[in-house]
Amino acid sequence: MIQRIDHLGIAVKSLAEAVPYYEKALGLKCEHIEEVVSQKVKTAFFACGDVHIELLEPTDPESPIAKFLEKNPAGGVHHVAFATDAIEAQLGQAAAAGVRLIHEKPFDGAGGKQVAFLHPKSTFGVLTEFCMPKPGAAGH
Amino acid sequence: MIQRIDHLGIAVKSLAEAVPYYEKALGLKCEHIEEVVSQKVKTAFFACGDVHIELLEPTDPESPIAKFLEKNPAGGVHHVAFATDAIEAQLGQAAAAGVRLIHEKPFDGAGGKQVAFLHPKSTFGVLTEFCMPKPGAAGH
Repeated sequence: MIQRIDHLGIAVKSLAEAVPYYEKALGLKCEHIEEVVSQKVKTAFFACGDVHIELLEPTDPESPIAKFLEKNPAGGVHHVAFATDAIEAQLGQAAAAGVRLIHEKPFDGAGGKQVAFLHPKSTFGVLTEFCMPKPGAAGH
Repeated sequence: MIQRIDHLGIAVKSLAEAVPYYEKALGLKCEHIEEVVSQKVKTAFFACGDVHIELLEPTDPESPIAKFLEKNPAGGVHHVAFATDAIEAQLGQAAAAGVRLIHEKPFDGAGGKQVAFLHPKSTFGVLTEFCMPKPGAAGH
């Protein structure tokens, strides 16, 4: 079952420019910055209630975030991640409802979570992630 | 101070098509559907943890949502709304940080809230709303 929105992934050209906006204009606190080599991004994490905002700066022109920024040069919401307590069942429910899955099975994502993505062609334009903390993991 | 994400506004071409996806594939419950004449949209509300998802279908080609869909035909996240306990101070903080405001002063939005938008040119591509329940209003 989906329990809440876990995080919003927001594509930005430059963390150096965007982090001060989130800190000064919105008053949110940057918790940490981390490079996720496998995704070719550098990420800044902010907590906002029980949702995290993850700013994503590409570290390589082949990063999915770099491709998103080619189409959306100003940046924007790249994906919405829903926290579920049963990710395989959640993927099965989506597939049964006719949704195309990018990942049939969850894989290990950042922060000790199991993650999988639905295809935006099936989700009315919103790239959608399911995520579930691994047992015993602290997660974000 | 920003307390949490209040809602995500998601542009869709058709509530009739998108609502069943949110209900069947994600398992979220549509709480109600409402036409907001002033914004030229029909809106479907879903709760997800303490965030609402608001699907926005344009009812007129001049609706801001219709214009968004011209650029993003598949749909997508149109805006992110942050709940604040002091909307005028929040706008002042954003302006002091150099953010361009669409609304210098909050106005009455749907659901008994005071709302105001920041300009996406100042917010790294994310159309950003501040909102605050009016005293005594139930809000969403």
